[in-house]
Amino acid sequence: MSEDTFFHPVSGFELPRFAGVPTFMRLPHVPPGHPRFSEVQIGLVGVPWDSGTTNRPGPRHGPRQLRDASTMIRAQHPVTGLRPFEAARCADLGDVGPNPADIQDSLERIAAFYSDLRTAGIRPMTAGGDHLTSLPILRALAKDEPLGMVHFDSHTDLYRSYFGGTMYTHGTPFRRAVEEGLLDPSRVVMIGIRGTAYDTEDRDFAKSVGIRVIPIEEFHDRGIADVMAEAREIAGTGETYVSYDIDFVDPTFAPGTGTPEVGGPNSFQALQVCRELAGLNIVGADMVEVSPPFDASGGTAFLGVSIMFELLCAMLA
Amino acid sequence: MSEDTFFHPVSGFELPRFAGVPTFMRLPHVPPGHPRFSEVQIGLVGVPWDSGTTNRPGPRHGPRQLRDASTMIRAQHPVTGLRPFEAARCADLGDVGPNPADIQDSLERIAAFYSDLRTAGIRPMTAGGDHLTSLPILRALAKDEPLGMVHFDSHTDLYRSYFGGTMYTHGTPFRRAVEEGLLDPSRVVMIGIRGTAYDTEDRDFAKSVGIRVIPIEEFHDRGIADVMAEAREIAGTGETYVSYDIDFVDPTFAPGTGTPEVGGPNSFQALQVCRELAGLNIVGADMVEVSPPFDASGGTAFLGVSIMFELLCAMLA
Amino acid sequence: MSEDTFFHPVSGFELPRFAGVPTFMRLPHVPPGHPRFSEVQIGLVGVPWDSGTTNRPGPRHGPRQLRDASTMIRAQHPVTGLRPFEAARCADLGDVGPNPADIQDSLERIAAFYSDLRTAGIRPMTAGGDHLTSLPILRALAKDEPLGMVHFDSHTDLYRSYFGGTMYTHGTPFRRAVEEGLLDPSRVVMIGIRGTAYDTEDRDFAKSVGIRVIPIEEFHDRGIADVMAEAREIAGTGETYVSYDIDFVDPTFAPGTGTPEVGGPNSFQALQVCRELAGLNIVGADMVEVSPPFDASGGTAFLGVSIMFELLCAMLA
Amino acid sequence: MSEDTFFHPVSGFELPRFAGVPTFMRLPHVPPGHPRFSEVQIGLVGVPWDSGTTNRPGPRHGPRQLRDASTMIRAQHPVTGLRPFEAARCADLGDVGPNPADIQDSLERIAAFYSDLRTAGIRPMTAGGDHLTSLPILRALAKDEPLGMVHFDSHTDLYRSYFGGTMYTHGTPFRRAVEEGLLDPSRVVMIGIRGTAYDTEDRDFAKSVGIRVIPIEEFHDRGIADVMAEAREIAGTGETYVSYDIDFVDPTFAPGTGTPEVGGPNSFQALQVCRELAGLNIVGADMVEVSPPFDASGGTAFLGVSIMFELLCAMLA
Amino acid sequence: MSEDTFFHPVSGFELPRFAGVPTFMRLPHVPPGHPRFSEVQIGLVGVPWDSGTTNRPGPRHGPRQLRDASTMIRAQHPVTGLRPFEAARCADLGDVGPNPADIQDSLERIAAFYSDLRTAGIRPMTAGGDHLTSLPILRALAKDEPLGMVHFDSHTDLYRSYFGGTMYTHGTPFRRAVEEGLLDPSRVVMIGIRGTAYDTEDRDFAKSVGIRVIPIEEFHDRGIADVMAEAREIAGTGETYVSYDIDFVDPTFAPGTGTPEVGGPNSFQALQVCRELAGLNIVGADMVEVSPPFDASGGTAFLGVSIMFELLCAMLA
Amino acid sequence: MSEDTFFHPVSGFELPRFAGVPTFMRLPHVPPGHPRFSEVQIGLVGVPWDSGTTNRPGPRHGPRQLRDASTMIRAQHPVTGLRPFEAARCADLGDVGPNPADIQDSLERIAAFYSDLRTAGIRPMTAGGDHLTSLPILRALAKDEPLGMVHFDSHTDLYRSYFGGTMYTHGTPFRRAVEEGLLDPSRVVMIGIRGTAYDTEDRDFAKSVGIRVIPIEEFHDRGIADVMAEAREIAGTGETYVSYDIDFVDPTFAPGTGTPEVGGPNSFQALQVCRELAGLNIVGADMVEVSPPFDASGGTAFLGVSIMFELLCAMLA
Repeated sequence: MSEDTFFHPVSGFELPRFAGVPTFMRLPHVPPGHPRFSEVQIGLVGVPWDSGTTNRPGPRHGPRQLRDASTMIRAQHPVTGLRPFEAARCADLGDVGPNPADIQDSLERIAAFYSDLRTAGIRPMTAGGDHLTSLPILRALAKDEPLGMVHFDSHTDLYRSYFGGTMYTHGTPFRRAVEEGLLDPSRVVMIGIRGTAYDTEDRDFAKSVGIRVIPIEEFHDRGIADVMAEAREIAGTGETYVSYDIDFVDPTFAPGTGTPEVGGPNSFQALQVCRELAGLNIVGADMVEVSPPFDASGGTAFLGVSIMFELLCAMLA
Repeated sequence: MSEDTFFHPVSGFELPRFAGVPTFMRLPHVPPGHPRFSEVQIGLVGVPWDSGTTNRPGPRHGPRQLRDASTMIRAQHPVTGLRPFEAARCADLGDVGPNPADIQDSLERIAAFYSDLRTAGIRPMTAGGDHLTSLPILRALAKDEPLGMVHFDSHTDLYRSYFGGTMYTHGTPFRRAVEEGLLDPSRVVMIGIRGTAYDTEDRDFAKSVGIRVIPIEEFHDRGIADVMAEAREIAGTGETYVSYDIDFVDPTFAPGTGTPEVGGPNSFQALQVCRELAGLNIVGADMVEVSPPFDASGGTAFLGVSIMFELLCAMLA
Repeated sequence: MSEDTFFHPVSGFELPRFAGVPTFMRLPHVPPGHPRFSEVQIGLVGVPWDSGTTNRPGPRHGPRQLRDASTMIRAQHPVTGLRPFEAARCADLGDVGPNPADIQDSLERIAAFYSDLRTAGIRPMTAGGDHLTSLPILRALAKDEPLGMVHFDSHTDLYRSYFGGTMYTHGTPFRRAVEEGLLDPSRVVMIGIRGTAYDTEDRDFAKSVGIRVIPIEEFHDRGIADVMAEAREIAGTGETYVSYDIDFVDPTFAPGTGTPEVGGPNSFQALQVCRELAGLNIVGADMVEVSPPFDASGGTAFLGVSIMFELLCAMLA
Repeated sequence: MSEDTFFHPVSGFELPRFAGVPTFMRLPHVPPGHPRFSEVQIGLVGVPWDSGTTNRPGPRHGPRQLRDASTMIRAQHPVTGLRPFEAARCADLGDVGPNPADIQDSLERIAAFYSDLRTAGIRPMTAGGDHLTSLPILRALAKDEPLGMVHFDSHTDLYRSYFGGTMYTHGTPFRRAVEEGLLDPSRVVMIGIRGTAYDTEDRDFAKSVGIRVIPIEEFHDRGIADVMAEAREIAGTGETYVSYDIDFVDPTFAPGTGTPEVGGPNSFQALQVCRELAGLNIVGADMVEVSPPFDASGGTAFLGVSIMFELLCAMLA
Repeated sequence: MSEDTFFHPVSGFELPRFAGVPTFMRLPHVPPGHPRFSEVQIGLVGVPWDSGTTNRPGPRHGPRQLRDASTMIRAQHPVTGLRPFEAARCADLGDVGPNPADIQDSLERIAAFYSDLRTAGIRPMTAGGDHLTSLPILRALAKDEPLGMVHFDSHTDLYRSYFGGTMYTHGTPFRRAVEEGLLDPSRVVMIGIRGTAYDTEDRDFAKSVGIRVIPIEEFHDRGIADVMAEAREIAGTGETYVSYDIDFVDPTFAPGTGTPEVGGPNSFQALQVCRELAGLNIVGADMVEVSPPFDASGGTAFLGVSIMFELLCAMLA
Repeated sequence: MSEDTFFHPVSGFELPRFAGVPTFMRLPHVPPGHPRFSEVQIGLVGVPWDSGTTNRPGPRHGPRQLRDASTMIRAQHPVTGLRPFEAARCADLGDVGPNPADIQDSLERIAAFYSDLRTAGIRPMTAGGDHLTSLPILRALAKDEPLGMVHFDSHTDLYRSYFGGTMYTHGTPFRRAVEEGLLDPSRVVMIGIRGTAYDTEDRDFAKSVGIRVIPIEEFHDRGIADVMAEAREIAGTGETYVSYDIDFVDPTFAPGTGTPEVGGPNSFQALQVCRELAGLNIVGADMVEVSPPFDASGGTAFLGVSIMFELLCAMLA
């Protein structure tokens, strides 16, 4: 009986990696409305949007560069041997069309797209987009109950507001998410936090609601195995979201981002932390803040999609 | 009697061009509140803002790169011999602080800043920012009566709206300005328009209100002297604003911009058109859409400030 | 009665230009086998291949960068008002899969793909690939009789062989094409030839078979209208192929190519020559030698797709 | 009672980081002659100069790029919580104007500037400039007695001369400083030395005068805590200068420098060594050899100012 | 008695490093036919060739960039003090002239060149070129008996074929070498293997013939000393080749390569593994896959020649 | 009878252009002392030096990048058919070794090198280096009588001094040359002068001694044929030097230079002016101010060597 290979990515043994219309990981392009949309189990989605950016913009160009770089990804995990595209029906669902000149309109468009995925039973793997992107996704995924979250980042993104009262920026999404009841703070862990600070307002808030913040110094001291064991314990067995800001990684390894902080993990550690997520109940994941204008070479994007592949495997492990 | 050289730029014969805190054209930094603010006649202002950008962002970084490049500008015009910084008291007034995550708030902040300049009798020379920046400036400058405008650009920026009804983008400022009575359409000329088009909605509007649009083919055919004579006639003797979008210039000469269109004027022509503005009653001018992320080398910015120097001389000719 | 807009490109007013999976000019992706393949009238095809390159490689990456840049193209020609995607059913047919380590295998794969297009009645607009790409296309299109050709380039590509007898390189395709009877030399014109020369072997051959070579000095002296009138006369009314090597354009305007020669046309002239092709019986066209590694910024590709749009309009004029 | 915030940096919550005339760490610009100059306790000074460079020039552009990057620095240390700009009155004193075509003239200009700072009781934090910059600074700071020095670098900069007898280059400053009695060799430690060598003349000199050289292999083997404990012991309680050549850091993390050597510390280690300086009696510090032409992206400069912030905190700890 | 310094590199104390026609490590250019060719003991050879590349081309430009970067290398090893250019007569033998449009012709040209070196008793140190370059070198060096090999890489390069049967690519050289009896699989070790995989065909082959593959995870876990001790044991006392693919190193440290895999060793480790080769019977070594188009800054090349210097020292230790 | 091809460049038909140790135009490397040195008629010399640079340094890297780019030059002039390497014995004489930290020492080294060439009857074609390089060359070439000069530049380089009395910079060489009697002012013409000015001190001097200055506006107005006819008349039949500063060309065509001025000639005009030099009695020529750090892509260098080829042909016409 012949196998249905519709959901298998194109192999580089057949078509050279530089050829073809670039989709995420060379998967089929199956936008909403496509005849096989309903079969998809994990949907790779682009959210080309950076209206929440308070500093250097660019993540709106992230999904395209990530798609391009993702043609370098092959079919099998190097350590576990997992072949995710055989383990689940994965597809590139295309991009959510944002409104770059209207934040509220964009928030609604994104939330609507992900609500449809949730209804269709498709688990989303998102390529952002700045970090404000995570907020409407959480609004869609946490409709029934608050989620746990493992958050890799150099910033907490827990600030109350910017510029005299602006509530929706890439520095505030998780403050809003906690306030809206989308996250269960006791099941949230933030890893890699570092860099000079304005003040302690974000960390004070974390403490006050019970979010665990692991600064980079502790990360380097304790090592990945120990830190991630604690992270798994915090997230527990409930539904958990994984949000991975590329600026978690040291900016030398990932220069293509808007608000870098020196002194982060290297590229091997960037993959290792994902491997330690296996076993969690992951309802969605994102890779955000990849900003092509600051790394035209695409090295950041290649690291980004390498991480996305690891996250995908973690969702299936 | 000793001369007061406070408003003279630092000479490269004294301090090498690469040295010193970079201000526009090495002029003194005289922000509002500075003791000598009231003496300023022409104020160079940065508006680091690109929230109206529908395509590739970046102009929020324009003022800083333009300041850096402007340290290459010297004191005297090569053809006329005019020494503008002796002809008028010029200063760097600093940047208008925008709110990158709130368009309406930013529009108000910018308009307020320029209203103060108008009150103080300071003519502004602005370094944007995307083209939406011109709208709040016009709101401040055209309080008494509509202005004429000479507009160099590859686009008309006369569209009604984007993305299903969004009214404030860098593609709509002059539609708004006409609607708000800030511009007198019969005294507006748009020069250099080109590139593939969505449709003819913008040009139809121009025709309907009497704005003269000179496409690049006509520009190349007739030559600068002829085209600019017509432009001067259109603007007439009334108060006139000059808006110069760097994408007027061919993108090979000015790659650092978000929405390039091939086939524009070269760098010599980019200067020449400014020299043909002499004699107009210029109440303000801007250089917009310089986007450093797309030209890290700074060549676009250096052309931009070379044009700003020409515009400055035109304001004093 | 509702219009079938399947073959219309996505508008930037709906979906921002940076969003979406990039296809040529935001057309639908209709590879062979797609249900609507047979309806296509003009097919945009990528040939990501550079095995014929004797100098600096890179054009294998051309189609992807050209697709990316082509999302900047809109629906209507700025001068004629032609809306090509309404005038004909155009689609992105995807890439021909080459064998980067076997020239003969690749030549066969490409010829086979284009033979199928010819059978299906689809006129091809190709994005190369190095200039050897034109040879297998001509083999497919000239099955019945030799074609005329308008060839924009800085090199004749008429050499006999390289490196002691190697017959298939990007410097030899038209020598082979003449030898194989694919081109009618009396209906071939080569425009823009320049640069230092090894010897006169290529030009002697051209003279011997009656190919007209117009060097860049003559091009600049006579002007475009005069030169192109002669070109149209040479090509005549028969079936004609248009081959456009991006190195026809001055390398400052198009640095992303492997064998640049200084002193070529500027970007406006690069478009103008295409507009002068209107009225020819064009059976196919190509844009070759765009080499992304030498222009990561994508400016060359954006010029390349702007030329492709002009060629497309010429095919429909 | 209202607080005097004159010496506090502008917050990114008020003015976006990309806005404003860039001064070091967004501090006030207080050049000599400024009314509040005498209040300054720590002065950030640029020395845009590279006439001592024997290889690839560029550090003359360092101060400007460092100022630009420094707008990313916030107010508080991430680990100790120290808020240096509240702990001491810090200001940007501007640049020393060098003579790029006359080494002796420049040495005198620099020494004179720093002598004035010493007289005014201002501790300097310098942004170079190549490493020859440290010599005139030491001449100013060590007027009374020789200083100790903690020197981070991949080279000893202890050579006698270059090119047949040239005594003043960026490879000789500390040889001169020892000869001139500006440094007490027994209180000098050089950390991170590596790379291929011409010969052992520099290390022989170090040994002969009692300078401790810690090569990178020993640094990696022993770890930072151990190495820095020894460094603190060597420097002791006397007045100590800290000289930090950016090429101490691995060139992948800091490519913007003229004479890189592979195999150095990573960016986290680059910060950590500064944290281990706390408690020393630091009379001045510098960050030299940042060369923007070799890292236009500014990543090296951002690391450089992150280190400068750490050094500043060490001066106050 | 005066010393013959013909084979000594030019010192940077005499001629600045940026001056002079660049040869490998500033050694004399002694191509075959040169009067002193027969005296050479170790020959540095360029093989500017990438016809076996299945993905992104560029290594044909490697030798030139490596020569340029190599002018930064000095005369003495920083740890052992070895002065290789005094320990053996080394020279730059120039480049093997490849045929970029004919793989078999190039394979023969390269094998012929190296056969001549073997006849002349010159041990080769090669600068590639893609990894297919190693095959013809092995054909020349292994004429009498199979060699052992220490192979640093992120890929095994052991695949059977590509694109439906193409046997000679940069992904297949060592499969061919084993099949042709050029390598003794029991004396071959591959270190650093990582990245997503198509399948396990290459590793299955390795296992079946007895090649030891050490994946990066094991490398990081065990550490260099332990891994390299095993490598030395595997290679044993017989004639051994060392093949060093620059993509062994993490792509952040070595972006200039065509098929990067994230998570590799850093630059210090990249040197350390070479130092652990001392004592092996090395008959030749190569540094391959340096691709300048993907790192125009030359940082990858500088790391590449730093590794070449270490390998050279290992050949003499 | 076999031809001696020693002085013929290597053909790209034999050895691909990217292969081989790069010498100027692939000519033999014949430094002083080489057995065939005395046979050379035209010597190509590099002067890697920029100590006279008052602004952005970099030309010390010029010769190496120009050599690299020059491997693209072939054997025959495209218009005249002249084959310069057959018309005269040309060779790459290597670089003059400068002392980057001592201007007077370098001036002496350069003058000595060129005096030897003059003694040997070798006409020099120089690749700089900044424009101060021309001074010691003129000192060597004008030993008997003052020379005429055709000078292409955007600056006059006629200033008296910089930074309070520094006499030797790249802005003063021709002031010194006139003062020292090396140039006959009445036979000197400066073409292309433009850009903002400090003052008119340089032009006043020109006028006072009778140097003809042709500003860019006059150049564009009159056209090349007319301007160059006047230039030939000014230079007359006496010995004439040609000095070509790459910043004569518009900085978009030649970004790799330290002090650009917008609005210059394009690349075709850059070649044309050289063609109009035919018939002059040229005793030497230079191409200066090519600064690789500001154009890593090498486009400026490729234009530079294309101009050098034209100048070489002009010396032989």
